[in-house]
Amino acid sequence: MERYLGFLFCLLVSASAVSDWNILHQKTKNGLMISLKNYCESWKMNVELHNIREFEVVPDECVGYIGKYMTSIQYQVDSERAVHESIVYLSTSCSLKNDGRDAWIFDIDDTLLSTVPYYKKHRYGGEKLNLTSLEEWMSKGKAPALEHALNLFNELKARGVQIILVSSRREHLRSATIDNLVDVGYHGWTGLMLRGADDELKGVKEYKASARKQLIDEGYRIWGIVGDQYSSFEGLPSARRTFKLPNPLYYLF
Amino acid sequence: MERYLGFLFCLLVSASAVSDWNILHQKTKNGLMISLKNYCESWKMNVELHNIREFEVVPDECVGYIGKYMTSIQYQVDSERAVHESIVYLSTSCSLKNDGRDAWIFDIDDTLLSTVPYYKKHRYGGEKLNLTSLEEWMSKGKAPALEHALNLFNELKARGVQIILVSSRREHLRSATIDNLVDVGYHGWTGLMLRGADDELKGVKEYKASARKQLIDEGYRIWGIVGDQYSSFEGLPSARRTFKLPNPLYYLF
Repeated sequence: MERYLGFLFCLLVSASAVSDWNILHQKTKNGLMISLKNYCESWKMNVELHNIREFEVVPDECVGYIGKYMTSIQYQVDSERAVHESIVYLSTSCSLKNDGRDAWIFDIDDTLLSTVPYYKKHRYGGEKLNLTSLEEWMSKGKAPALEHALNLFNELKARGVQIILVSSRREHLRSATIDNLVDVGYHGWTGLMLRGADDELKGVKEYKASARKQLIDEGYRIWGIVGDQYSSFEGLPSARRTFKLPNPLYYLF
Repeated sequence: MERYLGFLFCLLVSASAVSDWNILHQKTKNGLMISLKNYCESWKMNVELHNIREFEVVPDECVGYIGKYMTSIQYQVDSERAVHESIVYLSTSCSLKNDGRDAWIFDIDDTLLSTVPYYKKHRYGGEKLNLTSLEEWMSKGKAPALEHALNLFNELKARGVQIILVSSRREHLRSATIDNLVDVGYHGWTGLMLRGADDELKGVKEYKASARKQLIDEGYRIWGIVGDQYSSFEGLPSARRTFKLPNPLYYLF
């Protein structure tokens, strides 16, 4: 937290002026005069570039900016474009064999289902994660679908690709997760892998890499992964392609 | 090219209105009403997320948007933040041995030296690459430094890290490149690897991965890579960390 709050900036004006995003009122180490919008946009961009890693909270002064983004058309368009690129790839670069072993992996949270309604009540990532509270919310099964992801999901199904959901949600949420997914329109997946007790000892990256290994050992060809976290892609074995959805709310590792 | 021009959008108004970035006048496949700014920002974001790959030109309608970004404070702040994260990593997570084998890799173009003055005259990536013309510009040795990268370069040197430049520039540009680098303040690197005749048969990714292999075989520990292209990071062997600078002007692979 301190790392981000402390970043390069010296506030030159009082906090009361901070609400105007475009006023140039901060100075970087190298003397650039920048606005709070410049600062928060660069924070978001560097999260997506994977230059900023393992952050625990959204910087306090950027909570408003990130909240605005996550509820904006821009967030929807950014996600839609990622999904569009998956479909372009699927249509032009995948030689599907249709033998029941063509596979595609999805994350669940902020890939198929949105946690934005939860984070809306928790300062858009500006509060440290409270797992009990988040799981309580998940257990209600009220997360809405990310509409574009649902389109891709259905497109994959129509092409005969096996859909495997690999999530860092824990096993005790299995039934609530299935109900939630079905309620908002997802059905017909081939596998739903959640974190068992053993998996909880691993980091998310290791858990997801070992899930891929298991799938490949079973003969699946993993054509693509869609996820909102770099920990869904990293490590070996990898997939042929990965598609990263934007998500500046939290970081899983 | 067609792939991007053809994207999801139907223009609902005449091209004359296109100059107003914020007017909602396009409709995505899923019916979202969006502005040209939304569209071009999502194109840029998905380039940086590495969802859009192997593009040959910046989409014609986004040339203005990308040109504005590349000459903006925002581009500078985004780059500065990436460099800042490199320094945080260097200070907190690298156990340097100071035995002359701690190494750091940099790209050259749009990492140490800026090609923006060239692309300014070539529609900010809206024209297909003309290698002859680009190399002619490079041979003049007038590319300015990216100031933040110069700071990192000097910081690494001060800490005794060996700096290796691995660039996809061709060998015949060696002397112009050295002159240019020294002129704008870079000196004291350990190695400058350019593409020889053999390397030109490989893709950039393969060439850069084999350069890393060579360095590791020579006993170097590659702590980090700073580059503006994903082809500078991908493939094996990899570095402990990578830092991606934004660059929506072109794609090397």
